[in-house]
Amino acid sequence: MSLDIRINTDRLIRRIEKLGQIGAIDGGGVCRLALSDEDRKGRNLVIDWMKKLGLDVTIDKIGNVIALRKGKQNVKPVMTGSHIDTVATGGIYDGNLGVLAGLEVIETFNDAGIETRKPVGVGFFTNEEGARFAPDMMGSGVHQGILDLNEMLNVKDLEGKRVGDELKKIGYAGKTPTNTFRADCFIELHIEQGPILELENSEIGAVEGVQGISWNEYNIFGTSNHAGTTPMRLRHDAGYVASVISVEVRKLAKKIGGNQIGTVGVTKLNPGLVNVIAKEALLTVDLRNTDEQKLKQAENKIKLIIEKTCKDEGVSFKSRTLARFEPVTFDKSMVSLVSNVASKMGFSVKSLPSGAGHDAQMFAPNCPTGMIFVPSHKGISHNVREFTEKKHIQAGANVLLQMMLIKSE
Amino acid sequence: MSLDIRINTDRLIRRIEKLGQIGAIDGGGVCRLALSDEDRKGRNLVIDWMKKLGLDVTIDKIGNVIALRKGKQNVKPVMTGSHIDTVATGGIYDGNLGVLAGLEVIETFNDAGIETRKPVGVGFFTNEEGARFAPDMMGSGVHQGILDLNEMLNVKDLEGKRVGDELKKIGYAGKTPTNTFRADCFIELHIEQGPILELENSEIGAVEGVQGISWNEYNIFGTSNHAGTTPMRLRHDAGYVASVISVEVRKLAKKIGGNQIGTVGVTKLNPGLVNVIAKEALLTVDLRNTDEQKLKQAENKIKLIIEKTCKDEGVSFKSRTLARFEPVTFDKSMVSLVSNVASKMGFSVKSLPSGAGHDAQMFAPNCPTGMIFVPSHKGISHNVREFTEKKHIQAGANVLLQMMLIKSE
Repeated sequence: MSLDIRINTDRLIRRIEKLGQIGAIDGGGVCRLALSDEDRKGRNLVIDWMKKLGLDVTIDKIGNVIALRKGKQNVKPVMTGSHIDTVATGGIYDGNLGVLAGLEVIETFNDAGIETRKPVGVGFFTNEEGARFAPDMMGSGVHQGILDLNEMLNVKDLEGKRVGDELKKIGYAGKTPTNTFRADCFIELHIEQGPILELENSEIGAVEGVQGISWNEYNIFGTSNHAGTTPMRLRHDAGYVASVISVEVRKLAKKIGGNQIGTVGVTKLNPGLVNVIAKEALLTVDLRNTDEQKLKQAENKIKLIIEKTCKDEGVSFKSRTLARFEPVTFDKSMVSLVSNVASKMGFSVKSLPSGAGHDAQMFAPNCPTGMIFVPSHKGISHNVREFTEKKHIQAGANVLLQMMLIKSE
Repeated sequence: MSLDIRINTDRLIRRIEKLGQIGAIDGGGVCRLALSDEDRKGRNLVIDWMKKLGLDVTIDKIGNVIALRKGKQNVKPVMTGSHIDTVATGGIYDGNLGVLAGLEVIETFNDAGIETRKPVGVGFFTNEEGARFAPDMMGSGVHQGILDLNEMLNVKDLEGKRVGDELKKIGYAGKTPTNTFRADCFIELHIEQGPILELENSEIGAVEGVQGISWNEYNIFGTSNHAGTTPMRLRHDAGYVASVISVEVRKLAKKIGGNQIGTVGVTKLNPGLVNVIAKEALLTVDLRNTDEQKLKQAENKIKLIIEKTCKDEGVSFKSRTLARFEPVTFDKSMVSLVSNVASKMGFSVKSLPSGAGHDAQMFAPNCPTGMIFVPSHKGISHNVREFTEKKHIQAGANVLLQMMLIKSE
């Protein structure tokens, strides 16, 4: 470790704030949905910065952007990176921190005239959020061969717009093939997006792995009817069924306990009028667990509940899997390295799993992979009030710097 | 009774179908929301028909249209009528039947050269449905002084458009004062909009009164957060609270039993994304009962449930009453007259309360009022598949004809 080398925190924060102005929304947040015009502007800005640092920038067929800095040897590069797309009401940190901290590490290397043995690089990956196109981690998944390129190019958003067409529209349908790039190792810095580090006064999180994620969408088909004249016993109310499922998801998560999480984030009723029984309901169920067996049990339980509730109410349903990722365990030596580097720098460290999916998990099957978490104030994320203190950004980026130095030696 | 006089069923059905073409939607339904451009076109067509029958047409300050046929004496008129606005996915019968059957009765009087002692009239009333502007029965309520004119002119739709402005925009901000017109009596023909008559093989319903109606809208305010990283115990999920309320409304309706009805027709989550805990939920609760005390108990119970659920989840809420009408009991002599006339004509009759609100209920405090129901196939209403058989339309309109003859003698 070269403890005398430090990133320039003010420079990093200036970049975070500058990128946060693209798609800025009231309250200090940002809306930069994947492959939107705002995403295009954000991509252009970050690539401009990458080129000014002398990096070799490539764009692949799913729009992932990889910027490399040569090493003394032409070997696999030590990689960092994350994503710059956001949810509709996102904060300015989230994936942006990991991308811009990677840039900052490289600029610090440049400034200090450091020549690494292995190449180093920073990337940002298309549609990590899954807020516009499902599944999430789409770009990194295709990049590492976990997801199929053509299948993902054909994914449509709610308006029926294809990923492939939207990539072309914003000028990011690149030529570099996917599933060919392999890294020496991958290290991602990210805000925790949860409350644990702050609650336990830890400055750095050494991420042990990522929870398994199961996203399903359900369409419930009932019968639209007059709310005042249809006796309760004769109803086929799609909206009622949706509410039962939502309540049961909560009950199930509490019952399984531990890491089990369950959320219904989408509920839409059709026609959605005060005095009309809903003929259609659309809802999503997001289930997560670090234990694949428990996650499967939760999925099965919800399936049974939906089948029974639909049968009892005399309605039908169809379901669609939006995303399904098994839990990921990060390379033990990488988790230890995060922990050791942070401790040697004087930071308090906590090992913990990630509740959210991250691009890093797509690299995990192909190379040693680790993640560094920094605290999120009050655990708030995917929200305009998302906030991480300057001292924590500094700490996280410096741990990333040291790890990239060590791994690229 | 002059049993030898009959309405012209084909002429009546032609008018129903012609009016149904304005705002027609897929599946044979109609979307003619109050004060929309389609409503304007529908109004123009019906007024054209009224004038061709030689009627004296007036438009009042809330856009109600009244068409009168002179009697031998200048006394209060025997009135019928209903509404021609529809919900967004409505059928072609609903209020249209009552308006056009009234026209048909008058045309039959004209054809037969009948001169009545009292004047007779037919009207259609603004925004009966409440699908665009709350409360429902707005026009008839103002017409009979139950609702305040200026308050109603200031009601806004979800886009913030005022009733008063929209009336002007479609050319129906009339000059006739409201709350001055008084009828000798009011008889409304309407489809049942429920399944009872068909299930019990009755051809005519003698409506005893109208259920009390309570519409409330709730805004739930929670905290938006990442669905994967926020432990279940730390959530303030507005969407979850909405689903609990919806489930409890159903439970309560079943528990109270009898005529109690409860519906959540609107549930909207914000931001409404699969992996974001909802920070806001909007829902409506529609409660109805023929017994005012039981209706009040239901309202209070739901209020307590909402307060407790919000407290438990750590979220806040605000509520707004969209409509509140006490149960209405129709004049006993009018209910008997429907029953007697129908029986004498050879129809099977059932006395029953109305589950839906109707314009007639606004006349009930000011004059003897009654309603004639005809069966709705499978009880389906507020739906493009709403359907009433020709023979039932014929029966209902002929009962209306006989009642108007008797009452105007």
